[in-house]
This record gives sequence, C-alpha cells and structure tokens, in this order.
Amino acid sequence: MPTILGQNQYGKAENRVVKITRDGDTHHIKDLNVSVALSGEMDDVHYSGSNAHVLPTDTTKNTVFAFAKEHGIESAEQFGIHLARHFVTSQEPIKTARIRIEEYAWERIATSDANSRFIGSDEVKHSFVRKNQEIRTAQITFDGEKWQVVSGLKDLTVMNSTNSEFWGYVKDKYTTLKEAYDRILATDVSARWRYNWTSDEQRMPNWEKSYEQARKHMLHAFAETYSLSLQQTLYQMGSRIINNRSEIDEIRFSLPNNHHFLVDLEPFGLKNDNEVYFAADRPYGLIEGTVLRDGVEPQIPVDMTNL
Amino acid sequence: MPTILGQNQYGKAENRVVKITRDGDTHHIKDLNVSVALSGEMDDVHYSGSNAHVLPTDTTKNTVFAFAKEHGIESAEQFGIHLARHFVTSQEPIKTARIRIEEYAWERIATSDANSRFIGSDEVKHSFVRKNQEIRTAQITFDGEKWQVVSGLKDLTVMNSTNSEFWGYVKDKYTTLKEAYDRILATDVSARWRYNWTSDEQRMPNWEKSYEQARKHMLHAFAETYSLSLQQTLYQMGSRIINNRSEIDEIRFSLPNNHHFLVDLEPFGLKNDNEVYFAADRPYGLIEGTVLRDGVEPQIPVDMTNL
Amino acid sequence: MPTILGQNQYGKAENRVVKITRDGDTHHIKDLNVSVALSGEMDDVHYSGSNAHVLPTDTTKNTVFAFAKEHGIESAEQFGIHLARHFVTSQEPIKTARIRIEEYAWERIATSDANSRFIGSDEVKHSFVRKNQEIRTAQITFDGEKWQVVSGLKDLTVMNSTNSEFWGYVKDKYTTLKEAYDRILATDVSARWRYNWTSDEQRMPNWEKSYEQARKHMLHAFAETYSLSLQQTLYQMGSRIINNRSEIDEIRFSLPNNHHFLVDLEPFGLKNDNEVYFAADRPYGLIEGTVLRDGVEPQIPVDMTNL
Amino acid sequence: MPTILGQNQYGKAENRVVKITRDGDTHHIKDLNVSVALSGEMDDVHYSGSNAHVLPTDTTKNTVFAFAKEHGIESAEQFGIHLARHFVTSQEPIKTARIRIEEYAWERIATSDANSRFIGSDEVKHSFVRKNQEIRTAQITFDGEKWQVVSGLKDLTVMNSTNSEFWGYVKDKYTTLKEAYDRILATDVSARWRYNWTSDEQRMPNWEKSYEQARKHMLHAFAETYSLSLQQTLYQMGSRIINNRSEIDEIRFSLPNNHHFLVDLEPFGLKNDNEVYFAADRPYGLIEGTVLRDGVEPQIPVDMTNL
Repeated sequence: MPTILGQNQYGKAENRVVKITRDGDTHHIKDLNVSVALSGEMDDVHYSGSNAHVLPTDTTKNTVFAFAKEHGIESAEQFGIHLARHFVTSQEPIKTARIRIEEYAWERIATSDANSRFIGSDEVKHSFVRKNQEIRTAQITFDGEKWQVVSGLKDLTVMNSTNSEFWGYVKDKYTTLKEAYDRILATDVSARWRYNWTSDEQRMPNWEKSYEQARKHMLHAFAETYSLSLQQTLYQMGSRIINNRSEIDEIRFSLPNNHHFLVDLEPFGLKNDNEVYFAADRPYGLIEGTVLRDGVEPQIPVDMTNL
Repeated sequence: MPTILGQNQYGKAENRVVKITRDGDTHHIKDLNVSVALSGEMDDVHYSGSNAHVLPTDTTKNTVFAFAKEHGIESAEQFGIHLARHFVTSQEPIKTARIRIEEYAWERIATSDANSRFIGSDEVKHSFVRKNQEIRTAQITFDGEKWQVVSGLKDLTVMNSTNSEFWGYVKDKYTTLKEAYDRILATDVSARWRYNWTSDEQRMPNWEKSYEQARKHMLHAFAETYSLSLQQTLYQMGSRIINNRSEIDEIRFSLPNNHHFLVDLEPFGLKNDNEVYFAADRPYGLIEGTVLRDGVEPQIPVDMTNL
Repeated sequence: MPTILGQNQYGKAENRVVKITRDGDTHHIKDLNVSVALSGEMDDVHYSGSNAHVLPTDTTKNTVFAFAKEHGIESAEQFGIHLARHFVTSQEPIKTARIRIEEYAWERIATSDANSRFIGSDEVKHSFVRKNQEIRTAQITFDGEKWQVVSGLKDLTVMNSTNSEFWGYVKDKYTTLKEAYDRILATDVSARWRYNWTSDEQRMPNWEKSYEQARKHMLHAFAETYSLSLQQTLYQMGSRIINNRSEIDEIRFSLPNNHHFLVDLEPFGLKNDNEVYFAADRPYGLIEGTVLRDGVEPQIPVDMTNL
Repeated sequence: MPTILGQNQYGKAENRVVKITRDGDTHHIKDLNVSVALSGEMDDVHYSGSNAHVLPTDTTKNTVFAFAKEHGIESAEQFGIHLARHFVTSQEPIKTARIRIEEYAWERIATSDANSRFIGSDEVKHSFVRKNQEIRTAQITFDGEKWQVVSGLKDLTVMNSTNSEFWGYVKDKYTTLKEAYDRILATDVSARWRYNWTSDEQRMPNWEKSYEQARKHMLHAFAETYSLSLQQTLYQMGSRIINNRSEIDEIRFSLPNNHHFLVDLEPFGLKNDNEVYFAADRPYGLIEGTVLRDGVEPQIPVDMTNL
C-alpha cells in the first residue's frame, strides 16, 4: 500500500449547550459551543470502513448534554476536563481527547434603574442580555496522563486614539508609506494562553478568575503602552499577563492592524487635525507572536489564534 | 418604448467614518457606517448613460468625510440630517436623499480598577474597547420639505429563562408540538422606530437620550412581561416605548424565536428539570409586527427590520 | 388604549428541506430554504397572549416537510404555491400567506470524463457537487384570491474588463474623482422580477424555464452593453428581460459597484496599462432601480433586493 | 527579563489583486487574495519598538501589486514563489516568508448560446461571471534554501444521495443513534496537499494542471466510494490523489458531516422512503485526517484545513 494514514481525529463539533441554574428565583446562565475531537486506534475505519472502534459523533453530542446535567458547568475549562477525561478513560481505542469550547457571556437586565450595571434587588432575576463584547475560548487536551489547557478570547476590538507612532522602518524601492508620529492604533484581539497546570496532582487554577485577570491585564497593557509599533504593544500585552499570572506560561496573539486612515480634506479647504478617519477593511497588517515565560517550551500552534 | 424606469436611487454605501473629538486629554469617538441614496431626475442616466444629472457616488463619499469635520457628529440622526439637507438643497436634479447609518458603540478602558465601569480619574482617556452589544441604526429621509427619521437597533440578544408559556394554539393534522408551561424565551431584537419630528419648525428630539430611553423601555418590557406568546411580548415592548416616549409614533420589530429545546436526558437515566437546553440555529420562528400610536398612519416598510 | 397593532406576520423561517427523487438509479435533488409568514386575525395573540388563532410555527415547519412528500418539489414557485394555498384555505383566521424560498443548485459529478459537463452514461448517478454560482429566490404571496409571484437571484458576480466609461457627471466642491474612459465594471447582481400570473384561471408560467431565460438575458445584456454608467447597464438588463419574457412585468435590481481601482505603479517605475487592479470592499457605489413594462403598476418594494 | 519572545511574523494580509491580461480582444482574469507573513530578526521591534529591521506591511502590499505587473500571475503558486523569494533575498533581517493566497475562479459569459460552456467565436471576450464553486488556496513558504508549497481548496460542497451506510459502531450508555443502511453523505471539502517540490533545482510542477487533476481525483473518489464511514471516504479521496499525482506527498482534509436527517412523516400518515430530508446546521460531525505517501514525514499542521 503506497499511502498511509497520518494524524486523524473526529467528533461532534459545535454542540450548543445552554445550562440554567436556579438559585431560588435567581437564575444563572452558562452558554457554550462545545466541539469534541477524539483520536486513537482508528486505522480500520479509514482503511476498511469498520466502525468497531468508533464511538459515534452522535454519542459525543449526547455526552456533552448529559454532562451538563451530571457535572454542571462550573467553567468552560472544568467542563472540558470532565469530557476529555471521560472519553479517554471509558473507551479503550480512544487515546486522546481534545475539547474546544466557545463561551458567550450574558449580563442581567436591570429593571429598577437602567443606568446601574450592578445586580440590585429590583432586578428581574431571570432576564438576560448577551454581552457580545468578546468570545471566550478554551481548549482542553488529555492523553490519559497529561493535560494541556489553552484558554483565550477573540473579537475583542480595542482602539487607542493617540500615543501610537510608526517611523524609522526599512525603506526599499516599493516603499511609499509616510512616517506617522500620531496615529490611531486599533485591533481585534485574538489571544490564546497556555496554563502550566498539566496533572491532576497539581492544584487546579481558578479558571473564572484567571480569565478575568488575563483579560484585564491585556486591556491595561494595551491602554498604557505608548506604542512605536503594534509588535511592541503585542509584547507588552503578553508580558504583562505572564508577569502577573503565575499559572500562565505562554500566550499567542494575532492582532490585525485595523487601519484608520486620516482623510485628506485639503481638496475641500479643510484641515484634518487628527479628527476624521476612514476605517479600512482590507488589506490589513497582521501582527502575530508568542510571548513565553523564560525557559518554557512553546506549544501553542502558529495558527491557533486564527481559528 | 415598451419598458419604463421605476423607482431608482444611487449613492455610496458603507462609508466607514470615525471621528475623534479631543477635549483636552479626554478623547471621544463616533464610529459610523454611512450609506447615501439619492433620487430625482435620473431618467437620462438610465436610458442613455448621460451623467449630466449625476453627482458621482465618490463625491457623496467625500461629502460624508468632509461633513464629519465641518459639522462634527453630534448624533447619527443629526449627522444624517446635515447630509440629506445638503444633497437635496445643493443639487437641482436631486429631489430626495435617504441616509442610512449604523453606529458602533465604544466604552473606555478603565485602568485604575478594572471592576469599575464608571469613568474615573485614573482612566487612560484615549483608550477604548468596542461594546458590540447591539448595532444602533438611523435612517434619515428628506424630500426638500418633510423629514422622516427612523431609528433603531439590531442584534440585541435577550433571554428570559422562565415566565414564558405556549399553549392553547390551533392544532391541525400537521401539528405535533407539545404545549409548554415553562420555557426559555430568547430573541435577537431588531427594532425600528419612527419619530414624529417631520419639519424644521418642530423642536428636534434629543436623539441620544431618546435612543437610550427607547432601548431601556424595550429591555424592561421584555424582562417584565410574563409571556404567553412572543407576539404578546413584542406588543408589550412596542407599547411601552410609545407610551413613554411622546416623540415616537410607530415601532416595528422582527423577533426570531431563538429556540432553546429542552434536551431529553431520560435515555441516560437523568431528569432534565428545565436545566439543559440545546440552542438551535434553523429553522426559527419569526415574529414580526408594528405597534402604532392610535390614529397615526404606519410608514415603516414590512422588511425594514430585516435589513 | 393609546397604542394599536399594525401589520404583523409570523411563521417558521429557514426550513432547510432537501428532496431526493429517484428515477431508477438516477437521482435528482431539490435543495430549498423555505420561510413561512402568515397573517390574518391575530389581534388577540398580541394584546392578550391568547393563541386561539395561532397555528404554531412548528406546524408550519411540519407542513413544509410533509408537502415535499405529498406534492414533490417541481419548482420553488410551484412548491410555494401549494404551501400558501394550504395555509390560507385551511385556517379561517389566516388571510394571507407569504412563502419565501432560496434554492441552491447542484450539478452532477461526472466521473468518466471530468471535462464533460453533460450527463453521460458513465456518470455516478447519485453524486453531486453544489454549483454555488448564485442563489435563486422565489416569493409567493396569496390572499385567498390573487397570487403574487416574485422570483429572482442574488450573489451572481459579473465583470466586464473593458467597454465601461464614466464621465460628464456633475462636479461640486466635494468632487475629486477623475473621469474614466476605460474601466472595469463589476457587480454582484441581486434581482427580483414579478410575474403577471395572478390567478388560478391564468395559465401558469413554466417557472424553471422562465428562471433560466431571465438569467440568460440578464447576463447577455450585461456583457453586450457598452456602458457609460452602471445605471445604463441596469436599465438594459431589466429591459432585455421584459422585452423577451412576456410573463414578467417588473424587475428590480440592487447593483453594488464593486470598485476595481487601477493601482498607481509609477512610484515603482512601472506603467499600469489597465492591467493591475485593487478590488476594494467598502465603500461601494450602490445602484438600485426598477424596470417596468409600460403601463403596469410597480409592486416590488424598494428594499426587496437587499434581503 | 522573565518573559521572552517566541515565534512571530508580520505582513499585510488580504491584498485583493486582480490582473487583466489582454490577448487582442480576448481578456484573461486572475483574481487573488494575497497575504504576506515575514519573520526573522525581529526581537527589537517587539522589545523596544525599534523598526530598524521592519519592512512596513504597506510595502509588502505595494510589492504584491508591483509584482503582478513585473511578473504577471501565471498561477497562484508561481506568484507566491516570486514574492517569497523577493522578501527573503532582498532584506537581510527577513529569514522566512510565507505567502498565503486564495484564488477566485471566473468563467466567460457565452452570449451566442447560453447552453454552451465552451469558448466560442460569438462570446463577448471581456465579460465574466464568477464561478464560486470552491475557493482555491495556496501557501508558499521559503527560508532562503527550501521551498514548501501547500495547495488546496475549501467550500467545495458534495453529496451522495445513496451508497452510504453507518453501523457496527461502539455503543456506550450515552448512545442512542440508530444504525443506518442507506443515508445521504454530504460534506464541504476543505483539503490541503503538499508538493514534494522543495528546491529550485527540481523541475517545478505544472501548478494549474496539478490543481485541476487533484480536484478531479478527489471528486471521483468521493463519487465512486461506497462508504461505510466518512473516514473511509476521506482516506479514499486522499489516497486517490497520492496514487495518481507523483508531485503530491501529503494531503489533509477537514470534512464536516453535513447531516441530512430523514424527516419522520408518520405522524402525518406519510411514508418517507428516503425522499425528504432536513439539512441541519449544528452540531455536525467533523472528520479530519492526513493521508501520506508511505515513508514521508507529515508536515501539514492539524488546523490548516480549518483556516
């Protein structure tokens, strides 16, 4: 046989599970999109079509919904850990499970006072509006011995309206760009960070708090960095997280440079004093990079932040 | 000539203008997507290709950017009014201008205390994160005499995890649905409301405040209605706005019923006590309707909320 | 009561029905996305939540699938006619039914000779690849007496690489555009045409043939028109259809001007002799218009081609 | 410094270049979306913001358009090779260039006879309609010594309406799926194949012909395989390509199982004899795998087919 099978995996993707927890009249939501990918001794199903080792993708879907009842959904990461452990430990041919999750955040509709964003006594306790600001992500991989947890977010759009410059770059025969000493810097953050929790014997991170803190440090670093290049900002964002969160060892970013071009208003006898911009779609600069705790091996794949 | 020209319009669509206003170190953003549609004496360009009456779409784009400087952007509605008036009054062949705008909201990145959502002294005053919760819309039409302003929003996703029932409906030979006495009610609100401001001689509404209040009343009505059908909720949402905002005479909604189906966990020996739901994509119920102040003529087109 | 209910409608949207017809070993596919919208005596469900007049949206879904079996799917239009007639004639409170359909075309995978596009004896008769070139649309409305059928297509992208000019237009203080004597003309055609078949007593058009012919005439008119403006091309496209197809009385287009800007290569010492273009996304010109058979009343709504 | 920089790259993404070549009156189109990613000695720009090694992303954009003129676009692969070689050999700090390209195919509008798909004398030779059937992809990577070319396609939707079964699988406590002996098998093919051309000293493949042949073999294998699982079909598709195209050593697929569920029509007194299906959106099975020429090392990343 001149051809062979390489890496392969299968499972049910995009199981949209919503879990409501009732604490008296006060309800809580977890809203997830869960994708299961299993691999192991799967040569036969590829070579001959024998499904003797194949747990149907339909069953992996059922398991997601059943586990939402059996284990609840404390966090995306914890839920993924339950699922991955189950598939690897319950089915002999399955050697590795990778669970990918997207989480959609909701906030309460405050009815007593719409200006308040805090939960007050006059709130309707079962009414929610989706936040939509970013999508939270988690990927949990288990091979029967070691865990890898890579969390992150995407579609978090940020902008600095000043404190960004770009000059002193290489100029070749195709260079026409003018240097900029005060520009808008805007991007849609896609970030994935890897936890150094890898074994059931370690103490598990507080996934919810860690997410909130990583997000906060990233936003602060973006806001506070006086930027000479988007690469510098990227490094500051990553570095700030790793320096503040000992549970995180590696973080990768894909940062499109959402160009805001200053519109030339001179033909109309007007001066554009950094006021009026055209927000362009394509092309866009794309800045990608990994920031690591010194001494650790990088593991996050190059394109993971583009998924 | 056996064929004739009917309604026609043209202009530059989706001009992405971002306006930064500097109040000392504190910056403010307005982020709009502006589409221009002009109509009037345009027979010749269709019949013979003569452009003698045609102001180029490129010029309408330039005007959007120039006006952001000349007039600023106080609100989407006020900006559209400046533009529509300009096109109709400055070009003889143009009889009607319709400006459609989408607005994207931004909030400040609070750096002193990430838990605070209020603007404090320690904020970085030029750093922003896009809110993304909904897209605000405005449509301004001017025919040289009368104004029509239709504002609205889309993609505002809301959910009640209880206080919704559905029963007592018609049953025919194709009916298999079971009655529901406690279900999730969720929808992506698309709403457009029409103002009764139509003339320069009337006092103009406070567009920013009116938007905020219409949005608030809509959310409150959604949260507070014990719902026997999504139609009932729709009517309550519209009615609440019209009763509370005298400047608004008509509102139309398109409300997809974002089905959350209770998962049958019995095959796995589990009881699903309104806890675990499957969020479905398609098909979905689609409930559409207009609510009017008694005595006014409806003007919002049937499909406007689907754009 | 200071507020009243205006136009309203409801039903199940986006029912994805696929029908396989077996003619011996040779299979045929019809692949539709069917949306039902019903209206009538629906005041109570809005005012009080009483569902006594409400046929559930779930039932309208079931009817779509059942009718695919009972009536087959001869064409999108014929299928919509069966459905609309059923809802209006079988339920007293339902006075009008509007069925919207998208159709996705498939072609056979030719296995004997991949260069042949004709159905040959060596084809695998149950294997298909989706064409994807455009989406076909149909809207069927019935009020118990009269029919309205509006068919069409969207996302059909066409380009002329020459034979397009644009000059002789109005120039105001915001005009900077240079006149063009040889430019690319490209657009994504969205068109909807209305049939003059309105009664069961008229002979019904051949919907499949009519679609194919309307599409062909539109493409030919686009290709063969030496264009001085996209408006002129639009009118030619519409006019060609109405002149050639007596069953069609009205057609409306939305034609984005997909700008292809000639790239300035002079800074690199190169001459761009209408060779290298930048295909822009936004903003884009948007040209919209209706072409009518002389003497008929227009009925297609302004925004129908934007859905 | 406790944090360090890992893998990083930058460049201008999604440069939409359209090249028209005129052969007398007959025009030819190449329509590409080109993304540049450069890496090398880029520590300084991340650590300090010094751009001394940074060729601006704007320059990489200019280079794409200039090269369309200087070198033409013979194929996506050949165009990417020109670009990658240029960046690595002309800029000392740049050590690796990766060019990703999407290509959009066009066909001629035949005006003499709309049923003919062959180029005839009566065709308008500068009029085109976009094919849209699939998106062709190419990735070219050069490190100054070795080339890697990975070509492919995505969004090619195929269906077999019979000759597919699924049974004999593992059943655990969460399994409810019934075995199927005649089902629809449908998927959106995303495939990437790697060429064994790695050096300027080897004879370069005919990229256009190789694409056409790989696509053809994939479609034939899909059509001709009697399938007991989508994994089996995947392996047959990959294996067919590798066995027929000596220039290709490795291919990876992501194949969503586009579920078409047989609708239960029994409640309506109807029998569904494999005729009426509901085409579901989410969740979907996702089958991914690599097929290799025996003895070669796999190089295509796991998620490349998900980009």
